[in-house]
Amino acid sequence: MAKSPAEEHPVKAFGWAASDTSGVLSPLTFSRRATGEKDVKFKVMYCGICHSDLHCLRNEWGSTIYPIIPGHEIAGIVTEVGSKVEKFKVGDKVGVGCMVGSCRSCNDCDNNIENYCPKMMFTYSSIYHDGTVTYGGYSDIMVTDEHFVVRWPDNLPLDSGAPLLCAGITTYSPLRYYGLDKPGMNLGVVGLGGLGHVAVKFAKALGVKVTVISTSLNKKEEAIERLGADSFLVSRDPDQMQAAAGTLDGILDTVSATHPLLPLLGLIKSHGKLVLVGAPEKPLELPVMPLLMGRKIVGGSNMGGMKETQEMLDFAAKHNITADVEVVPMDYVNTAMKRLEKGDVRYRFVLDIANTLKAT
Amino acid sequence: MAKSPAEEHPVKAFGWAASDTSGVLSPLTFSRRATGEKDVKFKVMYCGICHSDLHCLRNEWGSTIYPIIPGHEIAGIVTEVGSKVEKFKVGDKVGVGCMVGSCRSCNDCDNNIENYCPKMMFTYSSIYHDGTVTYGGYSDIMVTDEHFVVRWPDNLPLDSGAPLLCAGITTYSPLRYYGLDKPGMNLGVVGLGGLGHVAVKFAKALGVKVTVISTSLNKKEEAIERLGADSFLVSRDPDQMQAAAGTLDGILDTVSATHPLLPLLGLIKSHGKLVLVGAPEKPLELPVMPLLMGRKIVGGSNMGGMKETQEMLDFAAKHNITADVEVVPMDYVNTAMKRLEKGDVRYRFVLDIANTLKAT
Repeated sequence: MAKSPAEEHPVKAFGWAASDTSGVLSPLTFSRRATGEKDVKFKVMYCGICHSDLHCLRNEWGSTIYPIIPGHEIAGIVTEVGSKVEKFKVGDKVGVGCMVGSCRSCNDCDNNIENYCPKMMFTYSSIYHDGTVTYGGYSDIMVTDEHFVVRWPDNLPLDSGAPLLCAGITTYSPLRYYGLDKPGMNLGVVGLGGLGHVAVKFAKALGVKVTVISTSLNKKEEAIERLGADSFLVSRDPDQMQAAAGTLDGILDTVSATHPLLPLLGLIKSHGKLVLVGAPEKPLELPVMPLLMGRKIVGGSNMGGMKETQEMLDFAAKHNITADVEVVPMDYVNTAMKRLEKGDVRYRFVLDIANTLKAT
Repeated sequence: MAKSPAEEHPVKAFGWAASDTSGVLSPLTFSRRATGEKDVKFKVMYCGICHSDLHCLRNEWGSTIYPIIPGHEIAGIVTEVGSKVEKFKVGDKVGVGCMVGSCRSCNDCDNNIENYCPKMMFTYSSIYHDGTVTYGGYSDIMVTDEHFVVRWPDNLPLDSGAPLLCAGITTYSPLRYYGLDKPGMNLGVVGLGGLGHVAVKFAKALGVKVTVISTSLNKKEEAIERLGADSFLVSRDPDQMQAAAGTLDGILDTVSATHPLLPLLGLIKSHGKLVLVGAPEKPLELPVMPLLMGRKIVGGSNMGGMKETQEMLDFAAKHNITADVEVVPMDYVNTAMKRLEKGDVRYRFVLDIANTLKAT
């Protein structure tokens, strides 16, 4: 019989876990493996709350292993390194994002896009190489293979920088891969949430002109005044949409609810790209004529590789890009989840793990 | 009041036209413009019957102007050239495909992709620069701006080569644009009809390995024996589809009926491409997760520019690529349309215009 989470490893650890599809989190004593020769052990300082955490807590994607300790936007400080660790030493600031392992030998791994490795292991609720379940950053310590740990740039805050490890790389990577990163280009960003608001900042730092596309006028002022977007379109206003038809080189669509693609495809120039990074549960309706007549594409993207994650973090530090965050204590997490579900956060909750996670 | 088709131009012409949404074709006397200084006048020898002709005859895309004379796979012999024509002389073999005009000054025109010019004029049922309606190749003569006329390679048959002007370029262009043209790549071709059978031939000539994907085993033997495909998959056989999961670099999907994309996306490797060239009337269901998890794209393509059409025709001649055709007399056209609708042709009807179109 498998050992309990508290007994399977030698190092005592503490976090907040959900034990069933209610998704309600409560304190849990568990354990971490001893620091292996390539492992980095670090004290978790901050951990962002991603919408994926909520999906997984409730097993809405069908892959959750209970108990689940979520958290994949993790910033911390190294407390121990294995004998063969080359990149880190005790005291270094580090980050861990969405994944903690991969096969390291497939084409994708060889090409530094471990995130597409068929054997990629998520930071939580995955089975690790040793057969044990992975637990995320809603916890006091992490032990992670150094390959999946990033250096933390000196001038990047740990709290507001933490969400970059998921929301940041998930938007930065497709801007690069799909070539929507050229100065002077016109980019649309659909959905101004955790991902969208960071996408605006990255695109602006790349010299791209950004149009935020939203269902209502509510976020216009902050999109333009606070985030620096160049313009704002209300997707439910046919006149506005018609006037902007064919003006965008591409769109980064961060919406995970079901929504129509036809109006978005209409905004894109011929040969332009609509890139989806949100994950609606049901299929979307794809009108084919706009793809044919304008040779447009609809693509997807999911996170980014470790090399690019480091590049993204360094780019963010250089351009003073952080997420807009609301830092909350650990015992606020269930309330935070309820507010997140309602879209009541601008734009990311970050758990203050180091100061507020107390072993009961 | 607008002049009648027989009176609006000085040159008497004769063809077969439909006058209403029944789509039934019958003989029609009409007229062509006098040969302008940049125009090429040619005697039509052969004209392929494309499925688009059938859609347009019945106004299924809503843009038909009656009377309509279809035909955009036209091969002929030059009988007169304008004073400023540079590329052609009397007696040359030539071809005209899907378009006869464009603005010649937009980005797309400048980039030799006139087919995406917003002002592109189709070979039939479009309004030309002079305000008159364009009439296609189910007719005895054509008068076309030389920019939209291609040189006919010496060793390419006029009859079986004619369909390349639509079916050929529509499949050749996306193979090139989407980079599915590298020797050793694995390409899927969905639908073995007018477009699909030519796609197989082009891909093979490019050194690409071709898997034909069809709903039934019916076409397996000819796909492999006659067209040279490397393998064959029955899309309704889950075991076959599962065994082939993740093996293709891309798919060229020529099907214009509504069909599921999920099984096709499953066949494609990460970072692969599903390219649609068929035009279903209703939106298709787009599952988003496969796009995200594998960074796959769904793209479209429509015909090709004049420069690439010439390149395609020269490539076809060099590699002895023609369409598999059934050459039929002009007065067989309505029967041919009925058979085409049932898929009862392997793979393209071609009208023998020069020998069988008689002015009544």
